Amino acid sequence: MKAARLHDYDQALILDEVDEPALTGPHDVIVKIGAAGLCRTDIHIRDGDWKAVQQAAELELPYTLGHENAGWVHEVGSAVDGFDVGDAVILHPLITCGRCRACRAGDDMHCADAAFPGLVVDGGFADFMKTGARNLIKLTGGLEPAEVAAHADAGLTAYHAVKKAAAILHPGTKAVVIGAGGLGHIAIQCLKAMTPAEVIVVDTSEPALKLAEQIGADHGVLAEGSEVDTVKNLTDGAGAEVVIDFVAERGVEKRAPEMVRNAGTYYVVGYGGSLDVLTHTMIFREINIVGNLVGSFNDLAELMTLAAQGKVTLHTATYPLDAINDAIADLEGGRLQGRGILIP
Amino acid sequence: MKAARLHDYDQALILDEVDEPALTGPHDVIVKIGAAGLCRTDIHIRDGDWKAVQQAAELELPYTLGHENAGWVHEVGSAVDGFDVGDAVILHPLITCGRCRACRAGDDMHCADAAFPGLVVDGGFADFMKTGARNLIKLTGGLEPAEVAAHADAGLTAYHAVKKAAAILHPGTKAVVIGAGGLGHIAIQCLKAMTPAEVIVVDTSEPALKLAEQIGADHGVLAEGSEVDTVKNLTDGAGAEVVIDFVAERGVEKRAPEMVRNAGTYYVVGYGGSLDVLTHTMIFREINIVGNLVGSFNDLAELMTLAAQGKVTLHTATYPLDAINDAIADLEGGRLQGRGILIP
Amino acid sequence: MKAARLHDYDQALILDEVDEPALTGPHDVIVKIGAAGLCRTDIHIRDGDWKAVQQAAELELPYTLGHENAGWVHEVGSAVDGFDVGDAVILHPLITCGRCRACRAGDDMHCADAAFPGLVVDGGFADFMKTGARNLIKLTGGLEPAEVAAHADAGLTAYHAVKKAAAILHPGTKAVVIGAGGLGHIAIQCLKAMTPAEVIVVDTSEPALKLAEQIGADHGVLAEGSEVDTVKNLTDGAGAEVVIDFVAERGVEKRAPEMVRNAGTYYVVGYGGSLDVLTHTMIFREINIVGNLVGSFNDLAELMTLAAQGKVTLHTATYPLDAINDAIADLEGGRLQGRGILIP
Amino acid sequence: MKAARLHDYDQALILDEVDEPALTGPHDVIVKIGAAGLCRTDIHIRDGDWKAVQQAAELELPYTLGHENAGWVHEVGSAVDGFDVGDAVILHPLITCGRCRACRAGDDMHCADAAFPGLVVDGGFADFMKTGARNLIKLTGGLEPAEVAAHADAGLTAYHAVKKAAAILHPGTKAVVIGAGGLGHIAIQCLKAMTPAEVIVVDTSEPALKLAEQIGADHGVLAEGSEVDTVKNLTDGAGAEVVIDFVAERGVEKRAPEMVRNAGTYYVVGYGGSLDVLTHTMIFREINIVGNLVGSFNDLAELMTLAAQGKVTLHTATYPLDAINDAIADLEGGRLQGRGILIP
Repeated sequence: MKAARLHDYDQALILDEVDEPALTGPHDVIVKIGAAGLCRTDIHIRDGDWKAVQQAAELELPYTLGHENAGWVHEVGSAVDGFDVGDAVILHPLITCGRCRACRAGDDMHCADAAFPGLVVDGGFADFMKTGARNLIKLTGGLEPAEVAAHADAGLTAYHAVKKAAAILHPGTKAVVIGAGGLGHIAIQCLKAMTPAEVIVVDTSEPALKLAEQIGADHGVLAEGSEVDTVKNLTDGAGAEVVIDFVAERGVEKRAPEMVRNAGTYYVVGYGGSLDVLTHTMIFREINIVGNLVGSFNDLAELMTLAAQGKVTLHTATYPLDAINDAIADLEGGRLQGRGILIP
Repeated sequence: MKAARLHDYDQALILDEVDEPALTGPHDVIVKIGAAGLCRTDIHIRDGDWKAVQQAAELELPYTLGHENAGWVHEVGSAVDGFDVGDAVILHPLITCGRCRACRAGDDMHCADAAFPGLVVDGGFADFMKTGARNLIKLTGGLEPAEVAAHADAGLTAYHAVKKAAAILHPGTKAVVIGAGGLGHIAIQCLKAMTPAEVIVVDTSEPALKLAEQIGADHGVLAEGSEVDTVKNLTDGAGAEVVIDFVAERGVEKRAPEMVRNAGTYYVVGYGGSLDVLTHTMIFREINIVGNLVGSFNDLAELMTLAAQGKVTLHTATYPLDAINDAIADLEGGRLQGRGILIP
Repeated sequence: MKAARLHDYDQALILDEVDEPALTGPHDVIVKIGAAGLCRTDIHIRDGDWKAVQQAAELELPYTLGHENAGWVHEVGSAVDGFDVGDAVILHPLITCGRCRACRAGDDMHCADAAFPGLVVDGGFADFMKTGARNLIKLTGGLEPAEVAAHADAGLTAYHAVKKAAAILHPGTKAVVIGAGGLGHIAIQCLKAMTPAEVIVVDTSEPALKLAEQIGADHGVLAEGSEVDTVKNLTDGAGAEVVIDFVAERGVEKRAPEMVRNAGTYYVVGYGGSLDVLTHTMIFREINIVGNLVGSFNDLAELMTLAAQGKVTLHTATYPLDAINDAIADLEGGRLQGRGILIP
Repeated sequence: MKAARLHDYDQALILDEVDEPALTGPHDVIVKIGAAGLCRTDIHIRDGDWKAVQQAAELELPYTLGHENAGWVHEVGSAVDGFDVGDAVILHPLITCGRCRACRAGDDMHCADAAFPGLVVDGGFADFMKTGARNLIKLTGGLEPAEVAAHADAGLTAYHAVKKAAAILHPGTKAVVIGAGGLGHIAIQCLKAMTPAEVIVVDTSEPALKLAEQIGADHGVLAEGSEVDTVKNLTDGAGAEVVIDFVAERGVEKRAPEMVRNAGTYYVVGYGGSLDVLTHTMIFREINIVGNLVGSFNDLAELMTLAAQGKVTLHTATYPLDAINDAIADLEGGRLQGRGILIP
């Protein structure tokens, strides 16, 4: 089969002809990939930014990238129950053990013995991929793999952060979304579908703000240097109860906490920067800073419900798998509108 | 009456003879001070560290310090109901409005229109003090002002942080308390009274650790440089679900997050330092950082219940109000064991 | 001034000429009534169903009914702060003390020392009414008393139940609303504004179901005897996570728990009947039954936000106060579409 | 092997010689039984009270009872990971699927595809028993099967109810435990270990109350007819925030709600009776009624922690498996002090 593999850090992926993956454990499932999302993390991986994590996991190059996957069940292990060949599925990005306390508590993203395909084992930029039965969700309501693949990681991460924030967003509250890109535009739709909050979107791009308003944002704020003041003006001078930061680098993470109202919460989703908040500010304003990983299996099932109901839609650009390096070039060059989707 | 007042920043307090405070508003109450706790914040105030806050509140020197107060009702305003002259009371440290959303939600410490006696208006290092009816709690169960005064701020702050943490402390979890001083030794007792968690105490002082173990701590860890490793060893290498930091300065706030288990929470109570956590760490480990202010009125009432039940006791050293500068000198010189209490 | 008063149980109200209410306490406020909602409870009161509560509160007839009030501030007591004569306001239905634990926790509807105008003291079917400063919310966003009066009790009660339910309504869940009348039609709008749940409405009236669907209900179920089965069919045979019952009498309260999914919750808002559930059912299915009173002050403020945002609108029929007995007759005769509003 | 089986309803169990259970599925585990608790439900089963549930599950007599089991791993299925032959284990009473939403959310007791050994398939009154890998917890901290077997159902149910209640039990609150028998005496210990609440125990037996006080209850109330008044007197006339009812039959379930404070919660754990509460009472007092099933897998792990820490101990009477009918006779005759434990 074909697979887009990384042979060396800082080098382009190579389309290789490789063996199809084979079942090795009783809970294994081989999925025929229908679509795989391209993520900025794939570029970070190529650049070696995740080398330490990969070495700790004893990954050896070359290997196949791709961690946002959907497709159809192709073959199932001896202990797999409930899936038939041909079932359309989306793949939770973590292969989890099902036995540890976290798995047993519904926090499977904190599984004590997980693997992350596309990062530390072969992923979905290929015709087929091996995964586990525990991370498959059947697609229903007419959803197709190509429509939803990007929800497997980008959507799931945005949904997870919004779900946490929803608990404190009563009528009259405001939520700031920083970064209206791949994750941000899903977060905006989730906020509008799940909460009565007013949504303020901050971005450096006018077209991104325009799209944000089309999909439900109440206010768009162009980040030109005075965005903290503008947000304050939109929130009675006090700041917002919720700030969700999909950037969290290049200094954004220094200014974002200033947009948070006293007793409010700053949700960190993006990464690259470093928090720098006085402990005096933490206590005097009694604010919270909440880290956000990808969501749980049930989170993904809930997001699929929103997608099937038409409440959350993805903006995508489709490429054949052969053109993966074009897709990556477009993403790096800022020419990729919406999430890039690879079709094998 | 006598009052210990600050005439100039960086100067010792002066025992002045001043007029007794008079009722001016319908909700005012004059309290005859029975005892007032001495806090490290009083030293910060003397040193001018709170000058900006004081100027914003239009405070003019000289004024009377003291924000941990208990005593007896002496005189009540025209609209005050439910208090009789002579009632023994402890004073919540904030005079709150009772009308804003925060007050109406039980988060009175976030009152939109509060005053803080001892910081921005005259406090309790005096024979009498003016406060509001809304921040008085009657002492019951035989509690005396001198026994509980230090709960008004130190105890209340520790209790408030523990109450937040209690929500995630099920059997099998561990809570780290950094700093076994004035606040920390109350937090240890609250943790043992309210949760099934194992309590690990980290401090630089052997006697403080010894006291911590006497009042219920399960493990004492001497902070000599390897305290992060020691905590990790006591927590299966993973860190603790809860870390409550009563120091949060001098680099402690840099190492404390490393003691937190993935998906766990770091509660900042002390201040002076600055957070410095990679946003990558925040998301990859999905940890939370929670700021903690003083607690609510109901928090203080709950703490008084624990005190009356004998579950939380304060370690104090008593001074006559005349000796306030001796007490301050002892506190600065490290000679004050337990909380210093001034008796007018 | 004019006041519609009850002189004898089971008799029509009489329009009396009475003295205007006078300030007696420092926190009193006299409100010029702009509009007062007519509630089925007013009929229960007339019929003597609340006699025991009224006698316990030492009410003497005649007195003025009316517990859903909005208008303008007319005169304020000596300790009232923050309100000016002429301010448009809606009145929380309970006059609360502000001092008890419940008031201090934001559960003011459980105030230990409350009065309920229109039930145990004079209410708002009059030109003026005395209330307390603590239960006034200023109208903003262009809201007028006549538009919102019915939110003071009917809307607030519906909102309060929905807010509790919202905590368990994630995407993919279903909420059943039994009774699409005065409270039910507000609940439907609140559910759609605040949650991603599908809303199933059960009522005995086809027009009520038609209105329900117009304001957002996803499914209407005519209650003709097989409504439990129909709800089961709409919920995979398992029942709904949430059932909110605005009827709870005439046997509805016996069948409603069968519509609840295992581990789900039955919210009782209506009254008149009696629960009859086997304790074996309670434990084997692990369901919850939650009583619901009117909401808190902050709940009412949040509902005003939804009203000002146009997310919740009331369907009303207006009568002059002089025609109150016509309004009551229309309500009893089933001729009153929407909530009846009396205008002095 | 030996197995105590029910051949006919209303007949004594018969000690049969039967084949050892064999692995049939990849996740099966055969456990060598170390101890099995005797439960009043076993008598209900014998008497045919669970016939409908058993028939729905297509159980055919004879079969082996016993649903509170602990022992050692004897043989594991092909897909079982993490258990070695000889590992000491306690068995969660439900064999769960691990795939449904409930299992994935940590609510495994609401598994959509569960089996309950001892009720609908062969249980643990035998030398060996077949179960699933998902419901095994390894015993650590020196715990022995005979010490903890009764926690598998009785303890787990009590713990689960207390854990729910703990969320509303702050200092100053009171919790009433009705019934200080098998489950109640564990609940008392859990309440004291996990909450700061005062515990009031109501029972008809003086020795049971004496034991309750020895293991931590603050007050014992003999149920002689005036127990509602006595509880009211112990709770300022208002009732308790929490009432946990381990009886819930013979009229106890009619009186118990009167012991609940306004806005408080009545937890139903026992069964046999029928709720009879006016919907008017539900709303006017805004109380909650919460059904309680057995706890989750993680609940059982947490309870094992409390047991290993010595905070919860069981009072038991041991019988050889051959004497099972003696044990049942003692239980029915009121001669069994503590939980009866069968040792094969």
